[in-house]
Amino acid sequence: MAKIIQCVPNISEGRRPEIVEAVINEVRSTAGVTLIDYSSDASHNRTVITFLGDENSVGEAAFKLAKKAVELIDLRVHEGEHPRMGAVDVIPFIPIKETTLDECDEIAKAVGARIWNECQMPVFLYEHSASTPKRENLATIRKGQFEGMAEKMAKPEWTADFGGNAPHESAGVVAVGARMPLVAFNINLDTSDLSIASKIAKIIRRSSGGYDCVKALGVMLEDRNIAQVSINMTNFNKTPLYRVLETVRFEAKRYGVNVVGTEIIGLTPMQALVDCAEYYLQIENFDSAKQVLENNL
Amino acid sequence: MAKIIQCVPNISEGRRPEIVEAVINEVRSTAGVTLIDYSSDASHNRTVITFLGDENSVGEAAFKLAKKAVELIDLRVHEGEHPRMGAVDVIPFIPIKETTLDECDEIAKAVGARIWNECQMPVFLYEHSASTPKRENLATIRKGQFEGMAEKMAKPEWTADFGGNAPHESAGVVAVGARMPLVAFNINLDTSDLSIASKIAKIIRRSSGGYDCVKALGVMLEDRNIAQVSINMTNFNKTPLYRVLETVRFEAKRYGVNVVGTEIIGLTPMQALVDCAEYYLQIENFDSAKQVLENNL
Repeated sequence: MAKIIQCVPNISEGRRPEIVEAVINEVRSTAGVTLIDYSSDASHNRTVITFLGDENSVGEAAFKLAKKAVELIDLRVHEGEHPRMGAVDVIPFIPIKETTLDECDEIAKAVGARIWNECQMPVFLYEHSASTPKRENLATIRKGQFEGMAEKMAKPEWTADFGGNAPHESAGVVAVGARMPLVAFNINLDTSDLSIASKIAKIIRRSSGGYDCVKALGVMLEDRNIAQVSINMTNFNKTPLYRVLETVRFEAKRYGVNVVGTEIIGLTPMQALVDCAEYYLQIENFDSAKQVLENNL
Repeated sequence: MAKIIQCVPNISEGRRPEIVEAVINEVRSTAGVTLIDYSSDASHNRTVITFLGDENSVGEAAFKLAKKAVELIDLRVHEGEHPRMGAVDVIPFIPIKETTLDECDEIAKAVGARIWNECQMPVFLYEHSASTPKRENLATIRKGQFEGMAEKMAKPEWTADFGGNAPHESAGVVAVGARMPLVAFNINLDTSDLSIASKIAKIIRRSSGGYDCVKALGVMLEDRNIAQVSINMTNFNKTPLYRVLETVRFEAKRYGVNVVGTEIIGLTPMQALVDCAEYYLQIENFDSAKQVLENNL
């Protein structure tokens, strides 16, 4: 019954494999964590790293990774399509098993304090760890990017949560915080009319009045000539996948359009799928914590 | 990425807690295994024990449990409603994660040999481990029960796989083998007509021409006054739960009857539910071994 916490740091290097490997080696060399995946994007010049660990090891690995990124990555010469503000740009801690957002928040704050104290890189706490509602959203914190951060932080309302009011000269600033697991869940429609996917995305997403924990966008899959509702599920406990799928299904019917399939991109926690099985199989009184065999380990 | 094997021994004692505890303590005291559940039934005078372990520990725990049951349980004075032939009656080894039926078969045979060599209790290999097709089915091996076993084993075709042609005087004989996980999956109908559930059970079960890995029976839920199709899924990889549910649904429609809910009794491997989520969510190209986060541990 060990606790499992996921950490998905993004670093601002996706072109020089030797730098990426040196940073990731800090995770590989930490006892008690398991490196799950990493993926570099050259045009973004960015690498997303995923690892799992318990409450004692996950923060240590994240700190070591951040320290190495600060040493090796210089934002003053960084170019790439993806917005970024730091050598390590964002470090989320995510509850997976036997743990909570609040426990992840504690870890995030401890790691944030250490990054400032030992690396002199200022830290903004974001998402569940944010000190004010204005800092919950990563995009709001990152606005202005590395190049605009000195001017932004000079304003009193943008003092860092750890580290005062000026960015690290070469490494910038980093966002650290606890958040729920994201599930990237895309729904494909049997139409080539992008406007239908866009209208449905607008209906289901929070920002325009839809479900609380949904971000969504209409996109074209050019190779298949079909439109897709591309979705980020930000809390599958509050807004489960099946609810979004069934909503997209009945909204699409208005246009005579059907769902032809879905995609899950990257990783999903087991529970996001178990919740859907429970719904569609109509299982009465199911206690997944006890009845799913693997949850007893 | 550790292997996980489940073991679900049944012992012929469900009335004297001190005996049950003494037998289960052999599991508790074995390093590398986790006791998940146990449940005694007084009218059956039988206890079902569930534990998990890796390939090195699960056989050791099963052997120690069997040895203790042979010492403490005397079938000559055993009474109970459930058919039985041994102090420990059956010991299945079940692949859960990163392992196969064939690996479980090796463990079953090693444990079987040891039970004969060290406890002088004869062993029949059953299910995937059976030496002949006639011995695959536990009920066929157990027919005649403890009281009839001496006469049965005297026939050449019923010589034990380990241990010759006479049962242990007080402990009888035991069936040991590898099998797939069972899922007890019941489907409730909005009718009080038992004959409808019975007809549908007959359609879906293997023994009367239905799905290969389904055992099924119509039963009444007296307290709710509804009929239920009570199902044992014997291999959810070959016959998934959703297929059986959807078949019951369309067969019930012939009678104007609907599915009102389902039940999963006891434990289910995660994958049985993930497979159903994948079907109902219509996920394209999903690789659960990689994309379900917990499978990477």
